Amino acid sequence: MRIVIVGGVAAGMSAASRARRFDPKVEIVVFERGEWISYGACGLPYVLGGDVDNFDSLVARTPEQIRGRGIGVRLRHEVTGIDAGAGTLTVFDRDAGRTVTEPYDRLLIATGVSPIRPDLATTDLRGVHVLKDIPDGQAIQASLEGAKRACIVGGGYIGLELAENFRARGLSVVMLEKGPEVAGRILDTPYQRRIREVVEANGVNVRCGTTVTGLTGKAGRVTGVQTDAGLVRADVVVVSVGVKPNTALARAAGVRLGKTGAVAVNIRQETNVAGIYAAGDNTEATHRVTRRRVHIPLGLTANRMGRVAGVNMAGGHATFPGILGTAIFKTFSLGVARTGLTQAEADALGLDAHSVDVSSTDHAGYYADAAPIHVRLTAERTTGRLLGTQIVAHHHLSAKRVDVVAALLQQRGTVQDLFDCDLAYAPPFSSVWDVMLVAADRLHREVRAG
Amino acid sequence: MRIVIVGGVAAGMSAASRARRFDPKVEIVVFERGEWISYGACGLPYVLGGDVDNFDSLVARTPEQIRGRGIGVRLRHEVTGIDAGAGTLTVFDRDAGRTVTEPYDRLLIATGVSPIRPDLATTDLRGVHVLKDIPDGQAIQASLEGAKRACIVGGGYIGLELAENFRARGLSVVMLEKGPEVAGRILDTPYQRRIREVVEANGVNVRCGTTVTGLTGKAGRVTGVQTDAGLVRADVVVVSVGVKPNTALARAAGVRLGKTGAVAVNIRQETNVAGIYAAGDNTEATHRVTRRRVHIPLGLTANRMGRVAGVNMAGGHATFPGILGTAIFKTFSLGVARTGLTQAEADALGLDAHSVDVSSTDHAGYYADAAPIHVRLTAERTTGRLLGTQIVAHHHLSAKRVDVVAALLQQRGTVQDLFDCDLAYAPPFSSVWDVMLVAADRLHREVRAG
Repeated sequence: MRIVIVGGVAAGMSAASRARRFDPKVEIVVFERGEWISYGACGLPYVLGGDVDNFDSLVARTPEQIRGRGIGVRLRHEVTGIDAGAGTLTVFDRDAGRTVTEPYDRLLIATGVSPIRPDLATTDLRGVHVLKDIPDGQAIQASLEGAKRACIVGGGYIGLELAENFRARGLSVVMLEKGPEVAGRILDTPYQRRIREVVEANGVNVRCGTTVTGLTGKAGRVTGVQTDAGLVRADVVVVSVGVKPNTALARAAGVRLGKTGAVAVNIRQETNVAGIYAAGDNTEATHRVTRRRVHIPLGLTANRMGRVAGVNMAGGHATFPGILGTAIFKTFSLGVARTGLTQAEADALGLDAHSVDVSSTDHAGYYADAAPIHVRLTAERTTGRLLGTQIVAHHHLSAKRVDVVAALLQQRGTVQDLFDCDLAYAPPFSSVWDVMLVAADRLHREVRAG
Repeated sequence: MRIVIVGGVAAGMSAASRARRFDPKVEIVVFERGEWISYGACGLPYVLGGDVDNFDSLVARTPEQIRGRGIGVRLRHEVTGIDAGAGTLTVFDRDAGRTVTEPYDRLLIATGVSPIRPDLATTDLRGVHVLKDIPDGQAIQASLEGAKRACIVGGGYIGLELAENFRARGLSVVMLEKGPEVAGRILDTPYQRRIREVVEANGVNVRCGTTVTGLTGKAGRVTGVQTDAGLVRADVVVVSVGVKPNTALARAAGVRLGKTGAVAVNIRQETNVAGIYAAGDNTEATHRVTRRRVHIPLGLTANRMGRVAGVNMAGGHATFPGILGTAIFKTFSLGVARTGLTQAEADALGLDAHSVDVSSTDHAGYYADAAPIHVRLTAERTTGRLLGTQIVAHHHLSAKRVDVVAALLQQRGTVQDLFDCDLAYAPPFSSVWDVMLVAADRLHREVRAG
């Protein structure tokens, strides 16, 4: 039996590792079109700012270590076609410059996402970048040598992470966001504003409601970003306006996509084509709160999907539990997190949702260095069922308490269930009534009253 | 209708506040034998070390603020007897030096606990203390003036908190513990050892297996602690060897105690005597994992009991959800937390429990300042039901992730439920697989295999 995996980052390597653990004898081969495998892409912004030493630090396992576990690794091998009927792949060996045919019994498509590149990001000007993989990061790092002005196009979480890291290098930073606020797809509006205020207070020039119209350059190097509100001078431009799933290979093989545009799978990560699995950022998942299929590419989701696919490809039985879209990021001292639905998302789905907002301190107000924490908690009005939470914490680590709500959403818990939780209290850690309990208490009274 | 509350700290003031909110008209009077009410006793060690500015900072609401909400407050009034048949109290007014009779319709006994004082702690020597309330803290602070050597008798969490705070003042510190390790009643042995090692590395001389036999003094002031292993010189001695519930008043009124020695109540915080409620550290609670009655006095528990009692006394209906014994404390850079049962506790109850131990870093290992975190996760072998967790984290805030397990214990979740949780990941916050998920994965395989 031969398991072939296309793509060697989060989902692909998780699958390879799990398949190997499940069956020590099955043949496993990973084809990766790039030169890097098994690395933490989420750490890329921090190499640029210095909180991660270098790009090599992001590598969890080297190709040699992986091969040492009996997993074949072919770098710079791009899978260009699948013949599902024959059970073969066409693979372009970039070093040899030739295409070979490879057989498979079970195939995993873990091709991930690509950054959306508006026309301006496909320029020939040097100094214009996206940030998706290690080569992107290396290119940005090279551009930053001697640079003084950075322009980040897009105010999503990667842009916000980059803003911190660019400021840490002493760059002047302008962030251009087309929408009315930063973090537009992540949090409800009042929480978007809280983030922007802190980012601005850290010296980032944030310009929301600004559309990029072009670039200026000189001697082949970018010198500025043209917008509908004037020119922004910049030595380095990073465009971070979202991602799209890499589905061309799947589609060509007859693999069905879902309404989200990502690959459709069942809970075993099987596609509609026998023997072909999909996992990772290119793949849909079921949202546990709404039961709908969604495409929310995130690191843990990709790893978990890969794990499930790996076990199943090796002959085991594993199922994917669905996601809550739990996400967290740091920008400057802020931690920002969410799980489940925002009020706006619940409204858009026609749910009868109600939210409360609580501002408190992350630990006892009298204990040193208590930092503000802002929590929105959302529930279904008629049933009290928890729908989601959003947290903006001024000591970033405190945003991790989003996990308590994630655990309860997983169990389809109610606001009352949250309030009843015996959470940990001591003055250096929380108030007697942890802010999540305060929010639950208030929300419980309001949904009961409502 | 007249609600009378005996004891004005956590449970008592929560009850008063909730009763007032539930019924703006009912008369509410709080009798407090001391001079301080409505303060955070858990913050006391930190005033001594400087992380809390002063004792006044611990006060949540002053007597004037409480009276402003229409709640009567009588300080230095000690309730000395209850006539449940007549619905009256005898109250000794310490300032006037006389005893008065006060009527009640509903009575709350929130008399808390007292520190256990072995014979040696009842000495007349100056410089020997317990730490339970603000006057104790003030007395210790006065003793610390000019002191160089502190001896802490007892290695529980208050002793461990004090050790950090005394070291922060530059004192030499000896900790004497009768048992074989510190934190003996809190964690399983391997985790006790981890704590001791860090406390020792911070310059505390920890002597376990050492029994105190007496004190030495000179000119009315303590000079040392005699032990079965020699003399420990000390200018200040704090004895912190546990607490016992204050139940004399309740017993004299015919209120039933439970097997734990604390006051027995139903889920509405009602005692066996009509019209008399109990709440707080003097009161039993039901453990949600074992369904047994336990006496685990902790801050949130006391506040929650008080809330329930307050609503019910005012004519509402509230019930106490039970506890998990979730506890957390900081000592030096360590955060230590637990919820549910330890392996030792589960064994003692005859449960077929199994634990795994996972050591990892609290966030991505490649990101700056990743600190070790050690997690023990315990489940019932036959069912996979979660029983508890213990955490020792070298960045103290990371111990707060105990709350995820608390949330699942609340819902009687399994190891699989924990593993399926979509927890928050970004490199500054956790590994892709949060250490709690890693523990769940491993435990799931072992209980399934076992």
